[in-house]
Amino acid sequence: MPVLVVGSVALDSVETPFGKADDVLGGSATFFAAAASLLTPVQLVGVVGTDYPMEKLESLAARGVDLAGLERADGPSFRWRGRYHHDLNAAETLETHLGVFSRFSPKIPEQFREAPFVFLGNIDPRLQLDVLNQVERPRLVACDTMNFWIQSRRPDLLELLRKVDLVTLNDGEARQLSEKVNLVQAARWIMDLGPRHVIIKKGEHGALMFSRDSVFFAPAYPLESVFDPTGAGDSFAGGFIGYLTRCNDMSDASMRRAVIYGSAMGSFAVEKFSTERLMTLTRSEVDQRVRQLRELTTFEEELPS
Amino acid sequence: MPVLVVGSVALDSVETPFGKADDVLGGSATFFAAAASLLTPVQLVGVVGTDYPMEKLESLAARGVDLAGLERADGPSFRWRGRYHHDLNAAETLETHLGVFSRFSPKIPEQFREAPFVFLGNIDPRLQLDVLNQVERPRLVACDTMNFWIQSRRPDLLELLRKVDLVTLNDGEARQLSEKVNLVQAARWIMDLGPRHVIIKKGEHGALMFSRDSVFFAPAYPLESVFDPTGAGDSFAGGFIGYLTRCNDMSDASMRRAVIYGSAMGSFAVEKFSTERLMTLTRSEVDQRVRQLRELTTFEEELPS
Repeated sequence: MPVLVVGSVALDSVETPFGKADDVLGGSATFFAAAASLLTPVQLVGVVGTDYPMEKLESLAARGVDLAGLERADGPSFRWRGRYHHDLNAAETLETHLGVFSRFSPKIPEQFREAPFVFLGNIDPRLQLDVLNQVERPRLVACDTMNFWIQSRRPDLLELLRKVDLVTLNDGEARQLSEKVNLVQAARWIMDLGPRHVIIKKGEHGALMFSRDSVFFAPAYPLESVFDPTGAGDSFAGGFIGYLTRCNDMSDASMRRAVIYGSAMGSFAVEKFSTERLMTLTRSEVDQRVRQLRELTTFEEELPS
Repeated sequence: MPVLVVGSVALDSVETPFGKADDVLGGSATFFAAAASLLTPVQLVGVVGTDYPMEKLESLAARGVDLAGLERADGPSFRWRGRYHHDLNAAETLETHLGVFSRFSPKIPEQFREAPFVFLGNIDPRLQLDVLNQVERPRLVACDTMNFWIQSRRPDLLELLRKVDLVTLNDGEARQLSEKVNLVQAARWIMDLGPRHVIIKKGEHGALMFSRDSVFFAPAYPLESVFDPTGAGDSFAGGFIGYLTRCNDMSDASMRRAVIYGSAMGSFAVEKFSTERLMTLTRSEVDQRVRQLRELTTFEEELPS
């Protein structure tokens, strides 16, 4: 069962205290696809410029990412240059060149329009809405967003949220969107707009999935070294939606496991630059990390007398 | 089975966005005792001034806190005045008057010296060491500390850490002590000094217990409203050590449950000012929150085909 992802495909240049990488694979759709494709077929819609080194995407294609929706437009590709300091908490953006991405108008190929699972990566909410007009009754639509759209495209974003089943945001974005400091209140405010599930990503502090009747918390795997945090959130989304798509089941039990797969994928993504670690990853490594994440929080409830 | 706690007994004046309270019960030993006494008998050693309203401690005594080690010294009691802003993340200290606490020299009453479990609250590491010289071979000694001592009493603190079984710190303190940004590395560095277990408290982000062969993560209970964060860490310690003392078992299974009891107690402590909520708390409410914390992270491992 395939998942459709619409988002950015970029070239990243990243500096961390541990090294630097230039013009490596980046973008929300790319990280999502790298993670999800280990679990289920992926249909990718995005845009790159004529300068994009297409051979870099071959490994994605080899893993079942259908690139029929990846447009090549005249002009330079989206490039991002960023730097992380010692605490790896926040990226310092050094340069952003949107290039052809600034005129991106997603065209969903005919053969992608019945994708049962759809992930709308972090792009202009107007484009996310436009994608929804091109697809046929997916079983689940999830979207991501960011501070920039919350501030500059609030009405469009609110309209989008009325039409999606699930939204992923980080804690700061949830607070900014809801204007509530408390995350439980923020999640409820967002669910009241429409989404049945709100996933609040807290980076090294794990992720919370709020649903109508329950809350689930997935810890982050306690890594001894984080190499490059770029793409962790999109890799999380790829693991999460990829797992749901694969099992095509949206029971609470399945959603909970999906969040754990998201956490596992996010933890692998940050072990190397770009999608490097995700692309060498095996299913058994993922399953092992899922078991480790389970071990991390498991305790027996019964009380000694 | 009793637990001995040595720490501060203070009068707090706290302002939060939700209200203010003046001259209410505060101090590390007080919060610890309020939480632990719901689970096991507590022996408290501390000092107050002649101005201390002793009747405020009656509810603690009624719940099995033995105050035989609470000295009344000539002079004013330890008073702290603080304020929390909207995000409730960090207290802004407005006034600190150490009073008689500045000359505190813990004297462990004869009948407390064989306590099998000992918690050294956040006081000068020289005094924590002095307590250890007065007790007889406890089964488990745990200590807390803070940024001030890490900076100003480093050699004494390192000597103390060689003599304790477990240390609790918050994430910032673990990084400051170890000079490592990564918490896994920080915990290992601290364990290499001596403690078999390091508990890193991350407030609303939960707590990590590092042991020689395992890591356990306890989520924080996602509260819809946090009223006053004062004392959460000491209440956590009270729940944790109180549970261990009560079951007198230090297996990994027991330690894991203990961390969850700590998380539960911390979550109750912040629901009202001072020890108010802890003092009305019942065992069944605690057990219910422990079940909720379990539900929060439980997922079934098996994969659908």
